[in-house]
Amino acid sequence: MWRDLLPIGRNAATRGYRRYAWTGADADCRAWFRAQAQSRGLTYETDRNGNQWAWLGDPAAGDAVVTGSHLDSVPDGGAFDGPLGIVSSFAALDELRTRAARPPRPLAIVNFGDEEGARFGLACVGSRLASGALGAAQAHALRDADGVTLAGAMEHAGHDPEAIGPDPERLARIGAFVELHVEQGRALAGTDHAVGVASAIWPHGRWRFDFHGEANHAGTTRLEDRRDPMLTYAGTVLAARERARLAGALATFGKVSVEPNGVNAIASLVRGWLDSRAADEDTLAEVVAGIERAAVERGAGDGVRVRVTRESFTPVVEFAHGLRDELAKLLGGAPVLPTGAGHDAGILSASLPTAMLFVRNPTGVSHSPAESATEDDCLAGVTALADVLEGLACR
Amino acid sequence: MWRDLLPIGRNAATRGYRRYAWTGADADCRAWFRAQAQSRGLTYETDRNGNQWAWLGDPAAGDAVVTGSHLDSVPDGGAFDGPLGIVSSFAALDELRTRAARPPRPLAIVNFGDEEGARFGLACVGSRLASGALGAAQAHALRDADGVTLAGAMEHAGHDPEAIGPDPERLARIGAFVELHVEQGRALAGTDHAVGVASAIWPHGRWRFDFHGEANHAGTTRLEDRRDPMLTYAGTVLAARERARLAGALATFGKVSVEPNGVNAIASLVRGWLDSRAADEDTLAEVVAGIERAAVERGAGDGVRVRVTRESFTPVVEFAHGLRDELAKLLGGAPVLPTGAGHDAGILSASLPTAMLFVRNPTGVSHSPAESATEDDCLAGVTALADVLEGLACR
Repeated sequence: MWRDLLPIGRNAATRGYRRYAWTGADADCRAWFRAQAQSRGLTYETDRNGNQWAWLGDPAAGDAVVTGSHLDSVPDGGAFDGPLGIVSSFAALDELRTRAARPPRPLAIVNFGDEEGARFGLACVGSRLASGALGAAQAHALRDADGVTLAGAMEHAGHDPEAIGPDPERLARIGAFVELHVEQGRALAGTDHAVGVASAIWPHGRWRFDFHGEANHAGTTRLEDRRDPMLTYAGTVLAARERARLAGALATFGKVSVEPNGVNAIASLVRGWLDSRAADEDTLAEVVAGIERAAVERGAGDGVRVRVTRESFTPVVEFAHGLRDELAKLLGGAPVLPTGAGHDAGILSASLPTAMLFVRNPTGVSHSPAESATEDDCLAGVTALADVLEGLACR
Repeated sequence: MWRDLLPIGRNAATRGYRRYAWTGADADCRAWFRAQAQSRGLTYETDRNGNQWAWLGDPAAGDAVVTGSHLDSVPDGGAFDGPLGIVSSFAALDELRTRAARPPRPLAIVNFGDEEGARFGLACVGSRLASGALGAAQAHALRDADGVTLAGAMEHAGHDPEAIGPDPERLARIGAFVELHVEQGRALAGTDHAVGVASAIWPHGRWRFDFHGEANHAGTTRLEDRRDPMLTYAGTVLAARERARLAGALATFGKVSVEPNGVNAIASLVRGWLDSRAADEDTLAEVVAGIERAAVERGAGDGVRVRVTRESFTPVVEFAHGLRDELAKLLGGAPVLPTGAGHDAGILSASLPTAMLFVRNPTGVSHSPAESATEDDCLAGVTALADVLEGLACR
């Protein structure tokens, strides 16, 4: 099952995955999902927002137990982030058959579209649309780096962009959603546990910092005549790290674009994207405000105008306590831990009871080709997911 | 004459020029040059390296007085850098006809190809090839950002790439080369002089700094577990400014590329290009070594490996003193000033007597759509160039 999925969207040079929403690599991943569903005799469907579903039992019966994750990737991502949840879901269903479990509640596996937001800049588009957290008009207007709209990309991939929007009937059929995911950190690495249960997702967001200076010749403009936005950007990157460190939060500039981006031209515009997260929303707001203040102050000295735009924000997510405690019990006292990463389970937690299982990651590395989990831990994850599905669906 | 040239290669959004070597915009500029030459009855030719020539008098007579500049641009460059020299050359020839001057020495106007190096990363390709400073094999291997080789681009534009190489016979015909250029700085802005004469070009070069870190998830990786090359880059940008300030030199990071360049991914690799210049080569070497030291030290703390590659270097150019003094005298005591910018006149100074005239730039801005010169100053530049050509060719 893994073997067929592994080569899709893999870059030969970096060994990383480039599976972006509504591209050819994405279509290949979707075809793989459909084939897995059909080879098991599961009822396959694509919903109005392009999320894929594979049902065991009657979808309309209600109170379904759903598991799944996503197949898309960040630029040069690893093999596990997303796919491990989907592959484990199919494997857990196989395991339930081996156990001859006959769950009275329907079970389903879901592949949510565009979770990483690598192409259109907004994460969890599939689950946001389904839950109404993202409107159809806003979604239509999203554009990728080449100016292609999400609507255009969907249409190109054969999905009707006019169909997208909230899907409350579908969500109302779900009694519980459990997403299995490779851990993105090292909290389990120091323990005897291969699998943990999520407590909460830190609030997080993306802010675009535009630093407006003045293009000029790098070889002739006196330092004191310059309005160089690269200096302000550099000062802001260092300030962000310092603010995050002092607050016990996270702050990262991982994406930059420069105009005109010529070796012998002082930049006219530097755009840097800040990703920041913290244990609570007040701390996060304080960190970001501090970074913005530092940017504006530094900009005043550099003759650079700073404009900050919040591009996305996800409040803190506390996973349903009852479900969380039930999972920890079903797994014999698995550790309960928070995470800084957003997930479809976090988006859906506003609409229905959701939970997450994390599979141990020895290095903690993720969003990178070096992301890993041992085979033993992956198998332990499948067993844990099967236990959870059986425990919930046969209750 | 200006009016036909102005719209070519102009970006509607930025109002800046994007005239890159061997593109459609470049072809349009070349067609304009050819038409200007032919409408004046000048002898038109393209040399083996794609430089364009327009001759008044017999090219083979020898001891020619040549003027000219370039028509290509940096990304989003201004209207004057390059084109002012070419337009002024044609206008100066018109002025000599009005004066009924009959120069015994042949005169020529040249448009050197690919002066800015915006597409293939190396400046002054046309004059470097002609003078032998750049070999044909090296030139063939140059690639643009899309992986197109210079040879492929030339061929696509209808120029035989196999023909390129040193052109000593052509250069031996030239007794003096004078390039008129808009000033890239404000040395003339504070004076009563619309036109100045160049004394020297500061030594300058381009260094690529590769900062190798480790890609990871921006939302889950603890600050102390990171190897974030963006921090090292930021520290290096600020160190470069500081070193340049202390040494009275220039240092600029204007171009950056980031991998994977995702909002929620810590970068694995940041590449920054340093442009640095100073009054003498020792100072320049000291400044660059200091920046490299600062980068390596900062990298050691960040867990980031730093690699520095010198991509190009141009030693100091002292323009021919005799020609320089003659020009200053012909122009009634015009100011003599150095510049930080490289030019074809600088490359050719190793092969023949060269000189430059600068036309006052009120703001000093260049390599930007905001680059400017007043109409009066441009006309003064034409008169000065006509005086110089007449003075040299009728001697």
